[in-house]
Amino acid sequence: MATHTLIATTWHNVLGTVPPVLNIADGDSVVTQTIDAAGIDKDEVQRWPGPNPTNGPIFVAGAEPGDALQVDIVRMTPIRERGWTRAALAGNVVDPERVRDLPPRERTDWVIDGKAGTVRLREPVPGLEHLVLPLEPMIGCFGVAPALGQAFSTATSAENGGNMDYRGFGPGCRVWFPVSVPGALFFLGDCHAIQGDGEIVGTGVETAMEVEVRLSVVKRRHQTWPRGETGDAIFTVGNARPLDQALQHATTEMLDWLTSGYGLSAVAASHLMGQVVRYEVGNVFDPAYTMVCKIDKKWLPR
Amino acid sequence: MATHTLIATTWHNVLGTVPPVLNIADGDSVVTQTIDAAGIDKDEVQRWPGPNPTNGPIFVAGAEPGDALQVDIVRMTPIRERGWTRAALAGNVVDPERVRDLPPRERTDWVIDGKAGTVRLREPVPGLEHLVLPLEPMIGCFGVAPALGQAFSTATSAENGGNMDYRGFGPGCRVWFPVSVPGALFFLGDCHAIQGDGEIVGTGVETAMEVEVRLSVVKRRHQTWPRGETGDAIFTVGNARPLDQALQHATTEMLDWLTSGYGLSAVAASHLMGQVVRYEVGNVFDPAYTMVCKIDKKWLPR
Amino acid sequence: MATHTLIATTWHNVLGTVPPVLNIADGDSVVTQTIDAAGIDKDEVQRWPGPNPTNGPIFVAGAEPGDALQVDIVRMTPIRERGWTRAALAGNVVDPERVRDLPPRERTDWVIDGKAGTVRLREPVPGLEHLVLPLEPMIGCFGVAPALGQAFSTATSAENGGNMDYRGFGPGCRVWFPVSVPGALFFLGDCHAIQGDGEIVGTGVETAMEVEVRLSVVKRRHQTWPRGETGDAIFTVGNARPLDQALQHATTEMLDWLTSGYGLSAVAASHLMGQVVRYEVGNVFDPAYTMVCKIDKKWLPR
Amino acid sequence: MATHTLIATTWHNVLGTVPPVLNIADGDSVVTQTIDAAGIDKDEVQRWPGPNPTNGPIFVAGAEPGDALQVDIVRMTPIRERGWTRAALAGNVVDPERVRDLPPRERTDWVIDGKAGTVRLREPVPGLEHLVLPLEPMIGCFGVAPALGQAFSTATSAENGGNMDYRGFGPGCRVWFPVSVPGALFFLGDCHAIQGDGEIVGTGVETAMEVEVRLSVVKRRHQTWPRGETGDAIFTVGNARPLDQALQHATTEMLDWLTSGYGLSAVAASHLMGQVVRYEVGNVFDPAYTMVCKIDKKWLPR
Repeated sequence: MATHTLIATTWHNVLGTVPPVLNIADGDSVVTQTIDAAGIDKDEVQRWPGPNPTNGPIFVAGAEPGDALQVDIVRMTPIRERGWTRAALAGNVVDPERVRDLPPRERTDWVIDGKAGTVRLREPVPGLEHLVLPLEPMIGCFGVAPALGQAFSTATSAENGGNMDYRGFGPGCRVWFPVSVPGALFFLGDCHAIQGDGEIVGTGVETAMEVEVRLSVVKRRHQTWPRGETGDAIFTVGNARPLDQALQHATTEMLDWLTSGYGLSAVAASHLMGQVVRYEVGNVFDPAYTMVCKIDKKWLPR
Repeated sequence: MATHTLIATTWHNVLGTVPPVLNIADGDSVVTQTIDAAGIDKDEVQRWPGPNPTNGPIFVAGAEPGDALQVDIVRMTPIRERGWTRAALAGNVVDPERVRDLPPRERTDWVIDGKAGTVRLREPVPGLEHLVLPLEPMIGCFGVAPALGQAFSTATSAENGGNMDYRGFGPGCRVWFPVSVPGALFFLGDCHAIQGDGEIVGTGVETAMEVEVRLSVVKRRHQTWPRGETGDAIFTVGNARPLDQALQHATTEMLDWLTSGYGLSAVAASHLMGQVVRYEVGNVFDPAYTMVCKIDKKWLPR
Repeated sequence: MATHTLIATTWHNVLGTVPPVLNIADGDSVVTQTIDAAGIDKDEVQRWPGPNPTNGPIFVAGAEPGDALQVDIVRMTPIRERGWTRAALAGNVVDPERVRDLPPRERTDWVIDGKAGTVRLREPVPGLEHLVLPLEPMIGCFGVAPALGQAFSTATSAENGGNMDYRGFGPGCRVWFPVSVPGALFFLGDCHAIQGDGEIVGTGVETAMEVEVRLSVVKRRHQTWPRGETGDAIFTVGNARPLDQALQHATTEMLDWLTSGYGLSAVAASHLMGQVVRYEVGNVFDPAYTMVCKIDKKWLPR
Repeated sequence: MATHTLIATTWHNVLGTVPPVLNIADGDSVVTQTIDAAGIDKDEVQRWPGPNPTNGPIFVAGAEPGDALQVDIVRMTPIRERGWTRAALAGNVVDPERVRDLPPRERTDWVIDGKAGTVRLREPVPGLEHLVLPLEPMIGCFGVAPALGQAFSTATSAENGGNMDYRGFGPGCRVWFPVSVPGALFFLGDCHAIQGDGEIVGTGVETAMEVEVRLSVVKRRHQTWPRGETGDAIFTVGNARPLDQALQHATTEMLDWLTSGYGLSAVAASHLMGQVVRYEVGNVFDPAYTMVCKIDKKWLPR
């Protein structure tokens, strides 16, 4: 199980069936440096147009349609001191008539201190002088090529993953994507130093990162939507608008997992989900919103 | 600051401007026993038709339109061993074509052990033999009379609160409702022994409880939607469909709170909310869905 | 079958169970003059606060829960020369970020010429000098008291009707509302000289009208949502947000009508609706949106 | 201005940047025969898998990003006697809990009589014996390649058109699509003999057609969403979920058209749209719903 270094020189603004830049074996790891959502690299050089240029795709030997690609997020290290955000709530997260009052969506710089593990505004803002946030790295956009020759902008997300902007996708998280093409074709980009639920200013703290992922194939694991696992919980991901539909997708996928994966009846799965389920909002900014449906592992059938 | 005991003999299926059953002073506490969502009391007697019969209303002296009614949930004690739920996910939380496959929404009994602090299914269900849940009491439906002579079913919720079915409304939580009529007219019912996010089977573990609340008036605290506070966080509540709109209401209310209550500019509030906000789903079952927007107190301006 | 004249001296901002101002027999007609959405009467006197003050309620003898109240809109005559609208699209009908660019929602006057049957802007607007619209009177807000002691603002709508702002509710239209309380308690107000689909500036041409309606009871006609009939078509009305849910309600009500009222199987009703149904948008401005589902009478079973 | 005959031998299940099968000059016409939504041709031979295989793409000389492709639907002639539909309303157009009661979505055959201009069920259904519908041909799925190398399934639609399933797309209709790639790359398929609003059984009467379109380039006509024109009206098209968002897109596009194309101020455009706009529902079945915003030409500035 080798570790590869992928030095990107071209990027993609879609997740689709394009020629791979790296071929790896099932279970190999990849270390790669991402550029930020606007296409600016660790040295502040614009390398590619936005939105969300992704490294890849990576062809994983043995992955076939009907399998799942397992992605372990091993490590995320900031490689640039500067991060940036937008200075106003997005129009779609406030009451419509209140959009008139929102400030301009200007770009604002933050300072990422990787050693101290902190993130703070570069210019002090009255009332937020004390605001020193923890570094909580996450991948904004990752996933695999979709089915049927489709190719989706890295601004949005779907069954194959994409720009889900869910703050849970950080180191230690394991994710499974449904494979639709041979080799899965894995893409990755748009890393954030920290982000609140919903990505409601339209950004996390956007920056460049060095990311290590391990990519493995789980054969014949039919699933429709992304699934994941942390130390404590399993979760499913729905991507759609409105948020109600994203929630329907995530909930249906969890029902399927509990019944076909854990052997529960639909009644038992309903009892369990009804009383212990947790929902987390990924993004409510992108063309598709993201809702996560989570169950603590301690409640799962043994 | 007296403590009153309210022994309900009639209940309400709306939150509206109806004659109060109790008049209290600002800051007084009330202890009252609720019946369950179907109108069945602690002795298994049907006392009132559903949905969600509420005790009250309570007139709080000094509360005027433009004020807020502060509700401290002091204590919630189960007073019946039996709780019940529905045995199937609700139709509106799964993908529409999958509703065809859902099991019947039969009523299922649970055992609530107040001493042990546990909740479990009365009849074992394969795969869930181990399922002993913690008692996590919460109020499903509470709030004040709405403005303009309106009266809303206890099945739904709005600016005045109501059937929000948010699991965060348990002991230790403080909630503020916007007052629209003299005396506020506070209603309370529909207690749950535990409930997952979203109330996705259409119920929590429905039961009868003895509840103690302290009711206080905060003068001239203009707010549009319910606000709340726990030991760690402040939060706002939006009630609407789709969930996107509930989120817009909760987010706009938090923006208003941070700017007019904490003195942040709209830019500063955006920076703060963008990177630290948390959303929690109340219910996605009732006519109005409920979304909670939360900020950890440690990030607030000092 | 008498014709009554109702001279309103008080109005209501809710549809609810309040004392009737007129009692009539089944089949009687009522002539009444309405004030406009802002509460201004035909003589430009402010008579009542907005929104949408309604005349009524009218108690119709013999109407019981489970019946339908049939409302024939016999005649609508403008009784004021002045109408008014808002000068900008509403925030919720354009893309959220575009709300920033909308003009202020100022009140603008129109001239209604009842004799000529025309409606035009009082002050010419460049590019619209030619704009002489036909007088197409309609009732913005009408309906009956809702069930369970509920009372809904005249700003919104529900199963009982209310502020549906559907331009099809003009002379010649017959509407049935589901009765929830004895006497039905019929309310009427908010007349428009003309209105486009969706009421997307938040108003039609708001004015005062003299309206004649005939009110009849249809016994034991169980229906959930308003139904209606024109010379050519039958239709059902759903009121909710998002528009998708309003459409679901209207479609389900039409399915019920075709199956229980016209004797079609669910398969036959699906075939018919699938190929001939028409949808019309009532409003997409009010708290509840309105969608109309229509079938041409020529396709109905004979 | 030549007329080309395109005999398709391969089809596409995406609208994307793939090699063209025909190159034509600006203003040329194309006659081509389509297969049905399931990939079955006029001779009842399965030629390609569904959904909605499209003929093309056609490269139109001179079309560049920023231009519009003008598509005149000249003629649509059924070339197969058999059409088919689904026998049940789709789950997403009825109230969620009512999905349980819907009949199976079985395929049902219809007879298309091109000479008589009629469409009827092959097997009589009780209550619908009289149902002889007019032939009202329309194109379910057509459009151009999207921007950024994206490729979208022919099951859905977006800014570039696609599977809009709007019954207004029949002979005599002119449509403009925003061009994103050189040559525009035009695709066409999924013809219906008739369809109701919303495509609420998930199909129109699906069949094979011979279609003639004339394709022209309008230089530097910046638009975001499809626009169109009939004899009487101009219209814009929004594709998204929920229907509210589709309506926002279509309304914003009409606002843009009236202001930049017809020289109206935003206030004048608001006045006009507010009182004369018409909305028509394309589909409420596909992943993206379709809403049409229409203005009668008689109201346009002269």
